[in-house]
Amino acid sequence: MIIRQLNEANNSTRRVVSPDGNWESTRLLLKEDKMGFSFHITTIYKGADFRMHYQNHLESVYCMSGTGEIVNLEDNTVHPIQEGTLYILDKHDRHILRAHTEMKMACVFNPPLNGNEVHNKEGAYELA
Amino acid sequence: MIIRQLNEANNSTRRVVSPDGNWESTRLLLKEDKMGFSFHITTIYKGADFRMHYQNHLESVYCMSGTGEIVNLEDNTVHPIQEGTLYILDKHDRHILRAHTEMKMACVFNPPLNGNEVHNKEGAYELA
Repeated sequence: MIIRQLNEANNSTRRVVSPDGNWESTRLLLKEDKMGFSFHITTIYKGADFRMHYQNHLESVYCMSGTGEIVNLEDNTVHPIQEGTLYILDKHDRHILRAHTEMKMACVFNPPLNGNEVHNKEGAYELA
Repeated sequence: MIIRQLNEANNSTRRVVSPDGNWESTRLLLKEDKMGFSFHITTIYKGADFRMHYQNHLESVYCMSGTGEIVNLEDNTVHPIQEGTLYILDKHDRHILRAHTEMKMACVFNPPLNGNEVHNKEGAYELA
C-alpha cells in the first residue's frame, strides 16, 4: 500500500506547471508505481483555451469543480464541463479545452506517464 | 470521445448500492469502454467500517471530500484519509476502511470492472 497526500506532492517535483500558463498538474501515481495507469490532479486555470492531442495515450478526465467546455475537433461538437462531468478520450481525439472558471480535474492515463513528459507542439505527450 | 455526467449516471444501472449499507458507487467508465481501467465515483457512508481485499484487481482511491482512515492489515498501520489523500493498493493489500464523515472518492481499477461485480465474502471482486 502506498499513501500520498496532494499537499505534500504539490511541494515536490510531482507538480508540473505548463510553460503556456494554461494548467498545472500534480502526478500522484506514475509508471514506477506499476499500477498500469497514472493518476494526476490537474488545475486548469481560469480563461485557459488550448488544444491537445494525446496521440500516444488514452485519458479520462473527471471534473471535481469549476466550469468550462471541451471541443471535440473530430466532429466539431462542444460539450459543457461542470462538477460531475467525465470526458473520455478513447480515440486519441484532438480537442480544445476551455476553462470558464478554474477547474480541478482528476485525470487517468493509460499507458501511465513516467512524470517527465511535457506537451509537444501537437499537445501530446511522447512515449518514454 | 465519450462524455458522461455523474447526475445522469446516478439515475441508471451504473449506480450500485452495497447490500451492507457501507457504500455506493457509480461506475462512470467500465471495461466496455476499452480504456484499460475503470473509473468510479464512490461514496463511503458516515460511520462505515468494513474490510476489503481486492485479490484480483489493483486499485487507487483519491479522497475528494470527507475524512476517515484506512488500516493496512498487511502491517497493521493506520493512515488518516482527508481531501487530497490517495491510497494505492498495489499489492492486493487486505484493508479496513472507516469513514468518520461521508467520504467522496474517485476510484480507478485495473483490470477494469465490467459493472456487474459485487463484493464477495472476502471483500473482493471476482474476475469476469
